[in-house]
Amino acid sequence: MAESSPVRFGILGCANIARKVSRAITLAPNATISAVGSRSIEKATVYAKENGYPSTTKIYSSYEAVLDDPKVDSVYIPLPTSLHVKWAVLAAQKKKHVLLEKPVALNVKELDVILEECESNGLQYMDATMWMHHPRTAKMKEFLSDSQRFGQLKSVHSTFAYLGDKEFLENNICVKSDLDALGALGDAGWYSIRAILWTTDYELPKTVTALRDPEFNEAGVILSCGASLSWKDGRVATFYCSFLANVAMDFVASGSKGNLRVHDFVVPFKENAAPFYTVEDLWFGELAKSIHPAPSEQQVNTDLPQEALMVAEFSNLVGSIKGEGSKPEKKWPTISRKTQLVVDAVKASIEKGFEPVEIIY
Amino acid sequence: MAESSPVRFGILGCANIARKVSRAITLAPNATISAVGSRSIEKATVYAKENGYPSTTKIYSSYEAVLDDPKVDSVYIPLPTSLHVKWAVLAAQKKKHVLLEKPVALNVKELDVILEECESNGLQYMDATMWMHHPRTAKMKEFLSDSQRFGQLKSVHSTFAYLGDKEFLENNICVKSDLDALGALGDAGWYSIRAILWTTDYELPKTVTALRDPEFNEAGVILSCGASLSWKDGRVATFYCSFLANVAMDFVASGSKGNLRVHDFVVPFKENAAPFYTVEDLWFGELAKSIHPAPSEQQVNTDLPQEALMVAEFSNLVGSIKGEGSKPEKKWPTISRKTQLVVDAVKASIEKGFEPVEIIY
Repeated sequence: MAESSPVRFGILGCANIARKVSRAITLAPNATISAVGSRSIEKATVYAKENGYPSTTKIYSSYEAVLDDPKVDSVYIPLPTSLHVKWAVLAAQKKKHVLLEKPVALNVKELDVILEECESNGLQYMDATMWMHHPRTAKMKEFLSDSQRFGQLKSVHSTFAYLGDKEFLENNICVKSDLDALGALGDAGWYSIRAILWTTDYELPKTVTALRDPEFNEAGVILSCGASLSWKDGRVATFYCSFLANVAMDFVASGSKGNLRVHDFVVPFKENAAPFYTVEDLWFGELAKSIHPAPSEQQVNTDLPQEALMVAEFSNLVGSIKGEGSKPEKKWPTISRKTQLVVDAVKASIEKGFEPVEIIY
Repeated sequence: MAESSPVRFGILGCANIARKVSRAITLAPNATISAVGSRSIEKATVYAKENGYPSTTKIYSSYEAVLDDPKVDSVYIPLPTSLHVKWAVLAAQKKKHVLLEKPVALNVKELDVILEECESNGLQYMDATMWMHHPRTAKMKEFLSDSQRFGQLKSVHSTFAYLGDKEFLENNICVKSDLDALGALGDAGWYSIRAILWTTDYELPKTVTALRDPEFNEAGVILSCGASLSWKDGRVATFYCSFLANVAMDFVASGSKGNLRVHDFVVPFKENAAPFYTVEDLWFGELAKSIHPAPSEQQVNTDLPQEALMVAEFSNLVGSIKGEGSKPEKKWPTISRKTQLVVDAVKASIEKGFEPVEIIY
């Protein structure tokens, strides 16, 4: 495959979230949609049309058929979490690179099966955590890494929440114990946990302790929860995730010299420009009557939305593997696995009555 | 004493924080400074001059002499915390109303001695938590109380921190085990705990669990710590307080319908106008490519700084007691005690190896 050929995606299923990623594949300069599979050909046909798939897109009546198509390089898997291990492993066995929707697995044991299959087949794996690919994320990281401006990391707090309506709380796959058993921890907490680990350059905490009194639905699926993470050196992180609160996508980091705040870290207020707020050496004015300076806003523009940048980055890596025989980029499976380890630890802490759980990597 | 006569304050000691409150007494229309006491007459004379005390101010060489002055109605006590119980009790015995700097006591047992002495003498007690008196605080409360705009409270997070320099960390009374043994928990955590309780209309949490791995100095005084609070109904709060991080005065509340954020809740960026940020019914745009609306800023102006409004409110209450025989306002001792109860619980949880501590009111 020539470097200039776009990476050809097969889409497994007609999930709502796949609409956004389908558009992103269309927008990414190095990717194209070549197939979609659904148990209903009719549904997939309508879906392909509604989402502007190329007229050449193959419509299959099964996921297997997508995986068997030799003109598919990569699959995007937006299926319910409980189905990830089956279909991601099968995709890897069929030599398809895997872009996997989050939460990536019900636990790290399942994820390891997926990652091992991808690795042994020389395939790229990436989880679909879109905000990682926004240029704002790199700009924020520059600030956090600046020992003069931010200093030493001391604390992080993140909230990711959205308010499920009656229909969502009764019927959405995110609250079904047989489909997305991790509930709000997997769907919302994933983002906060990733953000916290991103802040520590993926240094895992020593212990994770769930906050007391999460909320559950009747089937025992988490609707809201939180946790504290500690690194045994004074750094602390806390997060709250919920299907029962107004949309919040907050991330606040306190360093010894500066602070960083962002209020839309997962999905920005605007597609083409995203803000974050920094302040350095904040101190008290005369008689401590006021504090100075006020935080300043930094806007980071982007021509392509973050989800298209994610597809472009994934496709770059796939293109290098196919075109130049490169090795898969290990960063992506590594940080996905670390995120899952913390998700698992929060769940374990809840199950153990909010006892601290040590993270073993 | 006629209603229109200003309340006459005696100041115990020449603490730095007393400069700010001295100015506030001067600014408040219903208060005046009538005496100051210090072990050094010379120091107090210079201090009175530097801080623009009225020329009629009595300069005493002891705190006792201030308490014995019949022309002193009220005392402001900015002494180290370990001295509060002695001097606040003595002040109350001498029939002086008490404006007490925070942290108010080393523990609730000590505070109860103070509160009982004030109550049995029919005196007003108030802790010097200035931000409570900013008109912004009332405006924020309006939003939080609005079931249509904010809905049901789900989570709160607060950070209060400032970076102590070498001199502070070695010599400030805030890090001395014999003076302010509560360290960062008393000096900084106090504000976050008060803010959390303010959010719940002072409904105490059922349990308080300290975050693991606080930082201590060699004398065992807390330099940074945090805690999670839970109400057994899904509401959670977390806070982080520190002498080891850049100034942060954050308060973020998530409701089922709205969010509130403020980044300078203890001391505003500007003396005469303070912002807060609200957003209601935040939701995803088409294909979840963005979220709408962005938070909106509300500016609350004030002619008098919050510390002068605190003095004015305290003096109003004292004036009513003296002029009209009113009873002291119980709100202030009540919320001070509740704040202390949570401070005590955090400390107990740290001492018990981060076990949850039940709050018994």
